[in-house]
Amino acid sequence: MVHDPSNSGRRVPLWAPDTPSNSGRQQAQGDPLPSWNDGVSKRAIVEFVAAVTQQGGPGFVPPAERIVVSDNDGTLWPEQPMVFQMAFALDRVKVLAPAHPEWRGVQLFKAALEGDIKTLAEAGEGGLLELVKVSHAGMTTEEFQMIVVDWIANARHSRFNRPHTELAFQPMIELLAYLRANDFQTFIVSGGGIEFMRPWAERIYGVLPEQVVGSSIKTKFQIRDGRAELLRLPEVNFINDKAGKPVGINEFIGRRPIAAFGNSDGDLEMLQWTTMASGLRLGLIVHHTDEKREYAYDRNSFFGGLDKALDAATANKWLVVDMKSDWKRVFAFE
Amino acid sequence: MVHDPSNSGRRVPLWAPDTPSNSGRQQAQGDPLPSWNDGVSKRAIVEFVAAVTQQGGPGFVPPAERIVVSDNDGTLWPEQPMVFQMAFALDRVKVLAPAHPEWRGVQLFKAALEGDIKTLAEAGEGGLLELVKVSHAGMTTEEFQMIVVDWIANARHSRFNRPHTELAFQPMIELLAYLRANDFQTFIVSGGGIEFMRPWAERIYGVLPEQVVGSSIKTKFQIRDGRAELLRLPEVNFINDKAGKPVGINEFIGRRPIAAFGNSDGDLEMLQWTTMASGLRLGLIVHHTDEKREYAYDRNSFFGGLDKALDAATANKWLVVDMKSDWKRVFAFE
Repeated sequence: MVHDPSNSGRRVPLWAPDTPSNSGRQQAQGDPLPSWNDGVSKRAIVEFVAAVTQQGGPGFVPPAERIVVSDNDGTLWPEQPMVFQMAFALDRVKVLAPAHPEWRGVQLFKAALEGDIKTLAEAGEGGLLELVKVSHAGMTTEEFQMIVVDWIANARHSRFNRPHTELAFQPMIELLAYLRANDFQTFIVSGGGIEFMRPWAERIYGVLPEQVVGSSIKTKFQIRDGRAELLRLPEVNFINDKAGKPVGINEFIGRRPIAAFGNSDGDLEMLQWTTMASGLRLGLIVHHTDEKREYAYDRNSFFGGLDKALDAATANKWLVVDMKSDWKRVFAFE
Repeated sequence: MVHDPSNSGRRVPLWAPDTPSNSGRQQAQGDPLPSWNDGVSKRAIVEFVAAVTQQGGPGFVPPAERIVVSDNDGTLWPEQPMVFQMAFALDRVKVLAPAHPEWRGVQLFKAALEGDIKTLAEAGEGGLLELVKVSHAGMTTEEFQMIVVDWIANARHSRFNRPHTELAFQPMIELLAYLRANDFQTFIVSGGGIEFMRPWAERIYGVLPEQVVGSSIKTKFQIRDGRAELLRLPEVNFINDKAGKPVGINEFIGRRPIAAFGNSDGDLEMLQWTTMASGLRLGLIVHHTDEKREYAYDRNSFFGGLDKALDAATANKWLVVDMKSDWKRVFAFE
């Protein structure tokens, strides 16, 4: 059968209210989402899954087309007080600084070494790119992978004093597993670096390396000492954010997703690409409303600002998940 | 477990001769490669699969890391008298010509309309890009998909007078299926257009859209009449050929393959990236030696020239498949 991502012909309302809830394969085996409180959000998710998996039903989607895409920073784990990959970059600058006396007195590197987020933010994209150049390039892809594996094993979050991987949102881990149990393919589609996420995404989220879509720098093929390798270059290849997300999804996956999870304006176009099409769709926004257990922020946050996408949620019938009331627990260690 | 694509620690010779041949799951169920003649090539393939699937053996590779990449044009189907996608482009020019009086008298379009391959070849990359611009861009991704589906269903090969999809090499279809039966993931990695291949790759080769890696043009996200779409732009995004193939493999798959199939110098770096690393690897070149059943060409061919890669095959112990003697039949319809 020729693949038809347009799902044309399946014009049914979102979350059809009469969908029998016993058609999803998981429902019979106890609660697949134990960290979600009973309520509108959980019900909407379960009803969506029931509808698209009900053989012969009006919303049925064949397993191969059950593609779900999820943002990472702020959607699957926190992004405060700064995006974790930035903490990685700052730690790399600290490691590399002794060998770079020329950085001394340069404001950008001074701010990086002192963790001065405000100055770094003011340095804008150009400043961030400079930090990426020195921290993410100049080694082979396999060397970089080892650097990431080492950092992720040893670095700790400034507030929670735990490895960052322990901060994955437990309700979202359950949601991804629930979808896979219903024959969905779960992809991460993040503005973060694709090679920064791949070394640990499988262990933490159950998402395979080939199911991670992210931003990238250019690489160059070379043979050194009889071994083929890819050298990471200090040059941007693709920014998988905002309007870049649908582009990345189409290029990497080649099918239009039927569900998308995000938390910020960087996810707006991905949510639009997923839901503004015919057929049953699920758009979901994680709204950070819990400063006690995690953080509370939306419209004015430097990291993960949620403004336009929050306004668009109502018109598009996206599910806005209220972290505080919808999630029984945020982290596994609670 | 953290993914380690370097396969470090698995340093065993290629095609370990003492590998028991009954460990591959397929072997017990009759011949999985009926269109291959018994001989060195078939034996090398079967022994490789046996070695990497033998639990506890020195060459064992976990299923998740059993990645195989295959070129398309000339490796999975013919590429003479011209690459099939070029025939598609020329047919598109014919369809569009009546609406473009400004093409009249322009040598490039004249050559395209007359199928004058020699003049088109002389127009070089710039000329080809011009044809891609008019034939592959200016519509949405979904509209383009329908154009491809329509063409692939109706166009016929100039020599064989059959749909191009009937010209898929039967031995290679069997090889891909055999590998999938042994828990390999089969990817296409082609210089051809990613969106040209995706609409039919699953039906013909069993390769899913998300397992196709290819060249691409840029796309732009837009919302039109309440529907989100991606517009194809007349601008090159990525050329997945030569040294671009390892780059594309790393970007899309994120793991180093353990087997690679190619047929031309465009596959040289992909074969190097796959095999010039530690661990058991299979590099395979399809050598076109059968002008009766298909075509015979190598070093001096305009399409699919095989020169450097043929020289490199010996030193790298790549398997050079002799189409004439190794393949019992080339096409399913024989």
